[in-house]
Amino acid sequence: MPVTGAWRDGDPVGDRRFLQLDRPFVTEGGVVLEGVTVAYETWGTLDATAANAVLVCHALTGDSHAAGPAKAGHPTAGWWDGMIGPGRYLDTDRFFVVCANILGGCQGTTGPASSDPRTGKPYGSRFPTPSIRDSVRLQAHLQEHLGVGRWLAVVGGSMGGMQVLEWGVMYPERVAGLAALATAPAATAQQIAWSAAGRAVLEADPKFRHGDYYDAEPGDGPHRGLIAARMLAIVHYRSADEFTRRFARASIEPVERRFALDHRFEVERYLRYQGEKLVQRFDANTYRLLNLTMDLHDLGRDRDSVESALSRIRVPVMTLGISTDFLYPATDQRRMVEVLRAKGVPVTHHEIHSDVGHDAFLVEIDAVGSALADFLTGIEKG
Amino acid sequence: MPVTGAWRDGDPVGDRRFLQLDRPFVTEGGVVLEGVTVAYETWGTLDATAANAVLVCHALTGDSHAAGPAKAGHPTAGWWDGMIGPGRYLDTDRFFVVCANILGGCQGTTGPASSDPRTGKPYGSRFPTPSIRDSVRLQAHLQEHLGVGRWLAVVGGSMGGMQVLEWGVMYPERVAGLAALATAPAATAQQIAWSAAGRAVLEADPKFRHGDYYDAEPGDGPHRGLIAARMLAIVHYRSADEFTRRFARASIEPVERRFALDHRFEVERYLRYQGEKLVQRFDANTYRLLNLTMDLHDLGRDRDSVESALSRIRVPVMTLGISTDFLYPATDQRRMVEVLRAKGVPVTHHEIHSDVGHDAFLVEIDAVGSALADFLTGIEKG
Repeated sequence: MPVTGAWRDGDPVGDRRFLQLDRPFVTEGGVVLEGVTVAYETWGTLDATAANAVLVCHALTGDSHAAGPAKAGHPTAGWWDGMIGPGRYLDTDRFFVVCANILGGCQGTTGPASSDPRTGKPYGSRFPTPSIRDSVRLQAHLQEHLGVGRWLAVVGGSMGGMQVLEWGVMYPERVAGLAALATAPAATAQQIAWSAAGRAVLEADPKFRHGDYYDAEPGDGPHRGLIAARMLAIVHYRSADEFTRRFARASIEPVERRFALDHRFEVERYLRYQGEKLVQRFDANTYRLLNLTMDLHDLGRDRDSVESALSRIRVPVMTLGISTDFLYPATDQRRMVEVLRAKGVPVTHHEIHSDVGHDAFLVEIDAVGSALADFLTGIEKG
Repeated sequence: MPVTGAWRDGDPVGDRRFLQLDRPFVTEGGVVLEGVTVAYETWGTLDATAANAVLVCHALTGDSHAAGPAKAGHPTAGWWDGMIGPGRYLDTDRFFVVCANILGGCQGTTGPASSDPRTGKPYGSRFPTPSIRDSVRLQAHLQEHLGVGRWLAVVGGSMGGMQVLEWGVMYPERVAGLAALATAPAATAQQIAWSAAGRAVLEADPKFRHGDYYDAEPGDGPHRGLIAARMLAIVHYRSADEFTRRFARASIEPVERRFALDHRFEVERYLRYQGEKLVQRFDANTYRLLNLTMDLHDLGRDRDSVESALSRIRVPVMTLGISTDFLYPATDQRRMVEVLRAKGVPVTHHEIHSDVGHDAFLVEIDAVGSALADFLTGIEKG
């Protein structure tokens, strides 16, 4: 197993395209990054008036490969493959769909596994913590590069939804609609707590070496820490009802091993499988970094308050809550809707019933997609 | 820091008393343990008819020190100190209260840190996985030893509540009332999942050494793994509302460090503090073992079904749900109440409103205590 699951220079590019900035990029934290590159993918064709472009923002462990099959350079199929394509909800016969890997990511956009041009070595622990606003500024560069004056919509769930909300506040004139799914205007204490626990788990792996592990021998990366962190994350991405439905109390052991110290339940095997899959395609530093990025997410930072920031949004917003989401609860989505409406922002709010938990925004393609498609049609009609 | 926070022979005994079995103890898994010792504490006086004895069962990280101050041998005050004492809800002027450390525990009852009489060395990874039923059988030995024919009540929350339910099924003639708080008749898939994630975190610490770490140098125990496991557990023992009330998004860092990679939030400091406290007084093997014990908890095992097992209960039951408990949800408590009532078992059900989450059974002394006191009075009157 490689030391990191990050995509690195020399790996097959797959469907990625790249934009390298021709000037330094200064993060919100004040760090200057040279030669920042954004990896992105597009589907469909930009129309003559450049009015049909939709930016899709990925969540924590996503990347630019939102649609399309697994192939060289893309270890997994697109994370929203059922959503994006000809005749699908984000219909690429109508829309020009764009998805970029986030700053600090590990799938082609500059991040901790990238070479620091000053040293020629991977940044590792020296990569600065990006803010959600940094990523949105980078997406704005991409927008210019693509010749898109105004996104028809910016769309995303979870960490993607955080970017959507920042788009509305930072560039109200450069977007016509916002779809923020199962997300938060500012990370809550409990969201920070889960995230902090995951970071602690990763940092407890001595092979993490504070983030400077890229010169380790193959197989000697911080795999156990990342697997364990992913295992606990999966539990809060899903729901009690779904786990009961799928796994109940089933064990993978024969009855004579039921009191064995290494007894494994089906649900445990599932968690471990998810962890082992992530390690193949993700970078531990990016995992730590983007968890912190989400914790630091606060629309209200340096803007008086969350309410005041939300009041800057000038375009129609679609929001979506999931009945069994206890990480970004439906009640919190409704609270945000109330604030937006009180500020005069037009909001279409959906609540979907699903036992899948937070991940329903990725899994319940029909419920989420039909809501999204209606919203986009409404925006198109103005 | 010592390698383990377990109490070990030679440490101050504090308020502990000990019962050593004079015959081998065979676990449900079929392992024979020689010289098993139970550490227990008592408060109040057994009355002439031995009719006033209440057994209190502790939760995962508890021990026999349910009441009384911290002192030599007891690093912390009693975990239910506000509940138990003269004039308190479990009034030791009326009741003879007993609490025993569970089998596999680390505070005086035989467990992984104890010496295996066959080798003279700590059991470590060779300690068998105890079932909840094993612990109840051990408590039944203690009951005989104390000359108690019938407990007035067996009381406990969480893992303690699992023992309470088993008492009702295993020894219906030796208990007059059962108070099972915020617990489960069988661990659910999600409870197993959290537990499995915690075990994976601990096992990922190379210093855990599969459980055979007792000969490590001082300070070289599996502390980081246990701290991280405790951090994630604390999040699901508490609630989003409580964390927002107590910590919101507060950071411990000055503004110029807000994008530092080692940025720490208040809630994160709290979690870490809880983890560091646990390591001082708890054993990593016991943590792993008792998490598995809880996962294996299933009233229905070898008894046809949970429903059929619950139907064997012959005495009044008190149950309690907590509004913000998402680990042992109030809805699950109500479901158990329905089954019990359908089987003709008399149940008094309480639901308390608290933002503290699962830990409310430990924290909300007045709400839980007054319900318990009423229940005990009802049982006394017959």
